[in-house]
Amino acid sequence: MNSVPSYVSISWSRDELTIIDQTLLPEKEVYLELTSHRQVWDAIKKLKVRGAPAIGIAGAYGLYLGISPLPENDPALFLHQAEEIASYLNSSRPTAVNLSWALDKIVHKLMRASDLPVATLKKLALQTAMEIHEEDRQLCKRIGESGVALIPDAARILTHCNTGSLATAEFGTAFSVILHAFRQHKLNHVWVDETRPLLQGARLTAWELKKAGIPFSLNIDSAAGFLMQQGEVDLVITGADRIAANGDTANKIGTYSLAVLANRHRIPFYVAAPYSTIDLQIENGNNIEIEMRSADEVSHFGEKKTAPEGIDVYNPAFDITPGELITAIITERGILKPDYSKSIQTYFG
Amino acid sequence: MNSVPSYVSISWSRDELTIIDQTLLPEKEVYLELTSHRQVWDAIKKLKVRGAPAIGIAGAYGLYLGISPLPENDPALFLHQAEEIASYLNSSRPTAVNLSWALDKIVHKLMRASDLPVATLKKLALQTAMEIHEEDRQLCKRIGESGVALIPDAARILTHCNTGSLATAEFGTAFSVILHAFRQHKLNHVWVDETRPLLQGARLTAWELKKAGIPFSLNIDSAAGFLMQQGEVDLVITGADRIAANGDTANKIGTYSLAVLANRHRIPFYVAAPYSTIDLQIENGNNIEIEMRSADEVSHFGEKKTAPEGIDVYNPAFDITPGELITAIITERGILKPDYSKSIQTYFG
Repeated sequence: MNSVPSYVSISWSRDELTIIDQTLLPEKEVYLELTSHRQVWDAIKKLKVRGAPAIGIAGAYGLYLGISPLPENDPALFLHQAEEIASYLNSSRPTAVNLSWALDKIVHKLMRASDLPVATLKKLALQTAMEIHEEDRQLCKRIGESGVALIPDAARILTHCNTGSLATAEFGTAFSVILHAFRQHKLNHVWVDETRPLLQGARLTAWELKKAGIPFSLNIDSAAGFLMQQGEVDLVITGADRIAANGDTANKIGTYSLAVLANRHRIPFYVAAPYSTIDLQIENGNNIEIEMRSADEVSHFGEKKTAPEGIDVYNPAFDITPGELITAIITERGILKPDYSKSIQTYFG
Repeated sequence: MNSVPSYVSISWSRDELTIIDQTLLPEKEVYLELTSHRQVWDAIKKLKVRGAPAIGIAGAYGLYLGISPLPENDPALFLHQAEEIASYLNSSRPTAVNLSWALDKIVHKLMRASDLPVATLKKLALQTAMEIHEEDRQLCKRIGESGVALIPDAARILTHCNTGSLATAEFGTAFSVILHAFRQHKLNHVWVDETRPLLQGARLTAWELKKAGIPFSLNIDSAAGFLMQQGEVDLVITGADRIAANGDTANKIGTYSLAVLANRHRIPFYVAAPYSTIDLQIENGNNIEIEMRSADEVSHFGEKKTAPEGIDVYNPAFDITPGELITAIITERGILKPDYSKSIQTYFG
């Protein structure tokens, strides 16, 4: 590749999980060393590590960090405590399906191997976390390779939030498609939604695009419609936090508005996300729980108040884009097209 | 009225224009005393006074402040200098038609009365500025009285930017409709878009709603679509900075996206604006000049950087909402409905 990122969002060595503190970007590139599951819970909750796949990886290592110091003399108790720690970690971000998926995967492996010694179970948990980590690296690469086929020459792509290396093991999801399009000389420009309230676009995506040498401009979220109206956008691509069995997609608040605008302007709207984002248990978007976040994220900027004291704030973290507005869902297993109820079943059922 | 605002955005006494510094709200309620046209230019440019009607009023007094100290012995030179000062003041916000409208009105009056002594012309300019000010107070009241007929009972209204007393002589435009609906007990809730990048919704509209005791919540701009999707919005109402002869409307960036979203959800989308906002010289929205503003508004928050150094930023101040997406335009002369090319001609042609 002609642009290796000079940063690693998440890495493991010995009994330590190292993450880049995403809340301090783009001003400071600070790495945090996490050695307990409580620290991992806190890092996820406070968005120090964010992006659905990265949260899954961090959660998996966090579970290992939690069970690692447990006594090894009572396997039944150990398994019970492992389940409790998984459930605790899962409570840090209830909407991100990758987190519960990764935690469940490890817990189920431990359950199935419950006749092995506890020390072996601990090793199995770590090994599974490392597999989840490596799998994500591979699948992000495949998402980019698969999605690039949809990108026209000299493409001007609009994206929302952050879906880059920071959000995953490497490459990213929607960002991987952008990166692969850039490498294949198919990219003209990227329009980056700043992504209120936490500015993941301005702080993180802009930082990653700049590191990769990709041409881009930053815009406020509500300028996206005007850009489309002026014919400046060839396609929109975003990630996903959770996809229902019918293709309805939960993603960063503002994604739905982009999909409606793209639809009006007959611009393709793509979602790029790994397998684990699709939750077949969820029939449609109405059944996806939407996390409501703190008023301060909207009424303050850092310590500075930007709204009057004591007012009501409506601050959902995600919205739901109906499958009918999504031109295609790009996964590591290939490109899904509507009707998603059928195409998702065909690939994953 | 049951809610007299305890603040005055703009007032004149002796040779001094007093404005509330809107850039310091909601934290500080500071009044600035302006005594020269250069100070007025600066206050408009830096958005210390903002809102199309308030800018027109400030510009009118600013023109008087500029011509007031001029020598009175050469009427032709005086008129030439008055035109230059008007043109200078107009350069502070090129998109706001009220500014050029108010300045032109005074210049034309002076031209028509050019055989009078210069001292009398100066008095005429001040008198005209005071008329423009009082007219705005009256017409904002009539916009509210006229628009309230469109509001259903228990209405949940979404609005963007600031269109209140701060933006006008009093009452506001879209805000006047909200205020009148509240007084007539027709209002259930107001959803306030924070309005990036300068947060006029969070800083100003929230401040005015709170002062008036009106129930509201603040939300990020890109949550508006999700609110509509959930059935939480009965109508959208915004102001306008410039309306073309066919109803195409320039307003704060983000307005177009709201109109598209309202259209998808079959929610009425209203624009409330005074007569002077409609520019019959402009055939359609393609001919409206869009002011591009500084990158710092998006890439910084106050002094704090929120994006990497040295990146490109796309920061249009306005967008264009096509007339076809506007359910009605509420003016002091009544309610205009599509086809606007015809209805605008009927009222104003």
